[in-house]
Amino acid sequence: MTLEAIRYRRGSLQILNQLLLPHESVYEEIRGVRDGYEAIKRMKVRGAPAIAIVGCLSLAVELHAGGGADDLVSFLRDSLSHLTSARPTAVNMGRAARELMEFAVNESMEKSPEQLRESVIGWIEEMLERDVNDNKKIGNYGAQHILSGVPSDSVTILTHCNTGSLATAGYGTALGVVRSLHALGRLKRVYCTETRPYNQGARLTAYEAVAEGFPATLITDSMAALTMREHSITAVVVGADRVVANGDTANKVGTYQLAIAAKYHGIPFYVAAPSTSCDLSLESGRDIVIEERPPEELTSINGMPVAAPGIEVWNPAFDVTPHQLITGGIITELGVFLPSELQAALTGRLTAL
Amino acid sequence: MTLEAIRYRRGSLQILNQLLLPHESVYEEIRGVRDGYEAIKRMKVRGAPAIAIVGCLSLAVELHAGGGADDLVSFLRDSLSHLTSARPTAVNMGRAARELMEFAVNESMEKSPEQLRESVIGWIEEMLERDVNDNKKIGNYGAQHILSGVPSDSVTILTHCNTGSLATAGYGTALGVVRSLHALGRLKRVYCTETRPYNQGARLTAYEAVAEGFPATLITDSMAALTMREHSITAVVVGADRVVANGDTANKVGTYQLAIAAKYHGIPFYVAAPSTSCDLSLESGRDIVIEERPPEELTSINGMPVAAPGIEVWNPAFDVTPHQLITGGIITELGVFLPSELQAALTGRLTAL
Repeated sequence: MTLEAIRYRRGSLQILNQLLLPHESVYEEIRGVRDGYEAIKRMKVRGAPAIAIVGCLSLAVELHAGGGADDLVSFLRDSLSHLTSARPTAVNMGRAARELMEFAVNESMEKSPEQLRESVIGWIEEMLERDVNDNKKIGNYGAQHILSGVPSDSVTILTHCNTGSLATAGYGTALGVVRSLHALGRLKRVYCTETRPYNQGARLTAYEAVAEGFPATLITDSMAALTMREHSITAVVVGADRVVANGDTANKVGTYQLAIAAKYHGIPFYVAAPSTSCDLSLESGRDIVIEERPPEELTSINGMPVAAPGIEVWNPAFDVTPHQLITGGIITELGVFLPSELQAALTGRLTAL
Repeated sequence: MTLEAIRYRRGSLQILNQLLLPHESVYEEIRGVRDGYEAIKRMKVRGAPAIAIVGCLSLAVELHAGGGADDLVSFLRDSLSHLTSARPTAVNMGRAARELMEFAVNESMEKSPEQLRESVIGWIEEMLERDVNDNKKIGNYGAQHILSGVPSDSVTILTHCNTGSLATAGYGTALGVVRSLHALGRLKRVYCTETRPYNQGARLTAYEAVAEGFPATLITDSMAALTMREHSITAVVVGADRVVANGDTANKVGTYQLAIAAKYHGIPFYVAAPSTSCDLSLESGRDIVIEERPPEELTSINGMPVAAPGIEVWNPAFDVTPHQLITGGIITELGVFLPSELQAALTGRLTAL
C-alpha cells in the first residue's frame, strides 16, 4: 500500500502532520481555507506539489460546506491569494491558483453559482487525481528506463531528500520511481541520504521506506560516493525544484555533489519531475538565484545547539546541477528525455521514451 | 595564540574535556594513568595523535609522582598496555607504547631506576615537543606549497573533520596548514564541513576557528561541491588516519567525496599527515578494512532521535581516497610529496619540497 499523506473524499480532508514525523503519525482535519493556510504556513505539509494540492483541497472542502455563498468568484480569488501567500516561493500553488481562477472566471460566464461551485470542486479533484497519475507515470517510465539499461535481476538506487508521498499528492517523483521498482519486485535496495541540514531523508524518506517495506538504508550525505563504490549503485534518482530549458536542474542542496560523484563512478544520474516543474522560460541554470536560509538550520536541531557558538554559516537551500551531469535523463509523465531533448518534448515536438 | 587542548608541565597535566565542547570549555586534571585511560576511553580526548600524547603524558605524571617504585619496567609495560587498550584502533598509542618500551628496556640495562624514570619522562616530553614541531613544519610546508601555486593575495581553504589542536599535541595537521596561512596573513577564509555523523567539524573545528579568530564558515557536507563552485576554493586540505605506500589515504568518511568534487573543479587536494601516520607496510588502500560504527551515531544526536524508527543504517567511519585524487600532494613534516614520491621520501631516498 502507498502511505497516505493526504486523505480526501468530497467534503473531508485530513493530512498527516509532517511536523510530528517520524515520531508520531497524526492525521489532522482540514476544515477549510483557514486550516489549509495554517497547515502550509507551519509546514505541516511541505513539498511544492503537496502544498498546491492541500491548498486547493482545503478550498474544495470549504466550497462543499457552502463557502462563498454571496460572491463565489471573489471568494475564490481571495482564498487562492491567501493560500498562495502562505509559502510564496512554492511555485506550484501560484500556478494552480492562476489556472483555477482562469477556469472559474470562464465558467462563471455561463453557469449558475451552484453549477460553478460544483465545477470548481471537480477541477480541484481532477488536479489531485492528475498529480497522482502523473507521478505513477513518472514512476513507471523511470523504472522501465533504469531496468532497460541493466542485465541484472534487481537494482540498487540512491536518492536524496524526500520526493515521496509526503512531498506530492501521492506516490512521489524520484521516490515514485523507487516505488515502481519495488512493485515490480526489482528493487534490491534504496540508499537514502539524510539530507542535511533539514534531514528530510532521515525523517521523511526513511519514514516512508519503513512504512512501505522498501529495503532501505540510511546514510549521511558524506557517504554517498563511498556507497556508490562499495554497494554497486545502479542509478541515482533525485527530484527537482525546477528544471530549466537546457535541462539544468535546481534541487535540494547536495544534488550537484551527488551528480559529480555519479559521473566519476559511471553511474547514470536521473532527475524525476512532472512537466509542471519544468520552466522553459529560463534558458540555463545560471539564471536561477540560490536561496539562502537561516544559519540556525545548521547550528541547532529541534532547538538544541549542535555547533560552536559564534561560527559563521552558509546555508544555501538548493544547488543547480548542470545538464551535462544528468546522464540518465529527465523522467517526466511524458517519458524519459535527455536534457537536450527536454524542450522539444515538452512543447510537443518529440514523443516519449 | 594557539588553543591549548593539552596543558602540561613536569608533574602536571590538564586536558580540555572535548565531551563538553563546544558549549563549555573545562580543563580536567589528569593525575596518572588511571585518569589518562578514562579520558581516552570516554573520549574526553580524541584524534589519534592526541590520544597517544595524553596517554603517555599521564604516564609521565604518574612517574614523576613516584609511580612504579618497586619494578619500573613492569609498571611501564602494564601501564602502556592498559592505555593502548582504551581505544585499540588508535594506532599512534600502540606505536608510541612499542617505541617507549623498546627505549625503556634498553635504558634499563645501564641505568639506575631513578635515572630510568628520568629518561622515560624525558622521552615522553620530547614526544610532545616533537609532535608539535612536526605539526608546525607540516603547517608551514603546506602553506608555502599552496601559496606557491596561486597568484592571488589570499587563499580560501576547504577542510573536513577536526585536525587541529584538539586532535593533536597542538597546532594540528590540516588545520595546522590553515593556522600557518592565517599567521602569514594570507588566509581569506576557511570553510569547514560539519562532518556528519559525529559533527567534529561543527563542534570542534568551528570551536577552534572561533577561539583563534580564523575567518571561517561552517557548511554541511552536502554543500562542499557548491562551495567549490561559488566561493573560489584555492585548495582542499584534509588530515589522514592512515596513508599507505602508494599514497592511498584513509580518512574520515566524506573525504573521498570531497576529493572527487575537487578533481571535478580542478582544485588541488592535499592530505596533511605526519610521517608517523604513513604505513608503508600496506601497498594500496584496498588493503584497508573499513570500520563500521553503531547506527545510533546517525539516528540520534545527544540521545535525541532524529531519524525514522526502524530504518536500517550504514555507518562507515572512514573511506579511502585513491592517490590519483590527491592532486596537491601529501604534506608531511619532511616536505610536500606527490603520492608517487611518498615511499622514496619517507625512506630517505628523496629530499623535501
